[in-house]
Amino acid sequence: MKTQQELFVKMALDAWHIHIQRTDNLFNSLSDEQLSKEIAPGRNRGIYLLGHLTAIHDRMLPLLGLGEPLYPEWYELFVTSPDKASVAIPTMGDLRQSWKKVNTTLAEHFSTLAPADWFQKHNAVSEEDFAKEPHRNKLNLIINRTNHLANHLGQLTFLKPLNR
Amino acid sequence: MKTQQELFVKMALDAWHIHIQRTDNLFNSLSDEQLSKEIAPGRNRGIYLLGHLTAIHDRMLPLLGLGEPLYPEWYELFVTSPDKASVAIPTMGDLRQSWKKVNTTLAEHFSTLAPADWFQKHNAVSEEDFAKEPHRNKLNLIINRTNHLANHLGQLTFLKPLNR
Repeated sequence: MKTQQELFVKMALDAWHIHIQRTDNLFNSLSDEQLSKEIAPGRNRGIYLLGHLTAIHDRMLPLLGLGEPLYPEWYELFVTSPDKASVAIPTMGDLRQSWKKVNTTLAEHFSTLAPADWFQKHNAVSEEDFAKEPHRNKLNLIINRTNHLANHLGQLTFLKPLNR
Repeated sequence: MKTQQELFVKMALDAWHIHIQRTDNLFNSLSDEQLSKEIAPGRNRGIYLLGHLTAIHDRMLPLLGLGEPLYPEWYELFVTSPDKASVAIPTMGDLRQSWKKVNTTLAEHFSTLAPADWFQKHNAVSEEDFAKEPHRNKLNLIINRTNHLANHLGQLTFLKPLNR
């Protein structure tokens, strides 16, 4: 029988893992050529969103107190900068590999956390604010980042060929 | 001081309400003409997604045991059927109004639920399955529907004019 705390954590982490899996399946199903295309006319390219999601997830390592980011310089490339701003972005192969590496690293850390750990503050909130707003905890970061992932996953599905 | 149960309900409901607000702001900022367009070439039109989100949210009323759906016939039009399948869909004005009506109705019901109510089973899971899988509760439905909304919100942003 799960405690209520264990249940909350399972609900939030299940949603995270399902969306990682769906996004991973989509990336795996797309060729490099398809991923190089714009999601919609004039919008971000698939390769940019692959880098963007990797950089945002990589930043979760320090935010959750799980360690240093693996690709700290990608935040500037794929979050601070818009698509097509920089001439030098990593290769598709490197990006595909790093997407998996970051998510695997997060999953490994997640599996070692006790339920109570998830209700501690994350590192983007101060001690003072957390005392007043205890919902700004590590699990809340997972809920928010899952929604962020779902948002971009909806866009990335447009890279799949139309069924006519 | 909030109980942990209250805290978790707040985390999930905050994410829901934020995404409803963002989507509402986006719909309000788009003209009828813009909402009539396809999100991306050959994909769903904005008007279909407006109906789709309304129908999915309307179905949450019976799933959460909060009452009958307000527009039961829209499920067939906007969920079972793909876009452009039916000649007779409601007008943009009716759809815009119903989107607000459904979400307001949900919000009113949500505000009357006690934290413990959210951990009861929803109506798409059997008693037997719920006994084995207690995470399939009402709050989990909110988490899943928030991700569904975020997924389509990401697509709907493409209806906004490009900043060139």
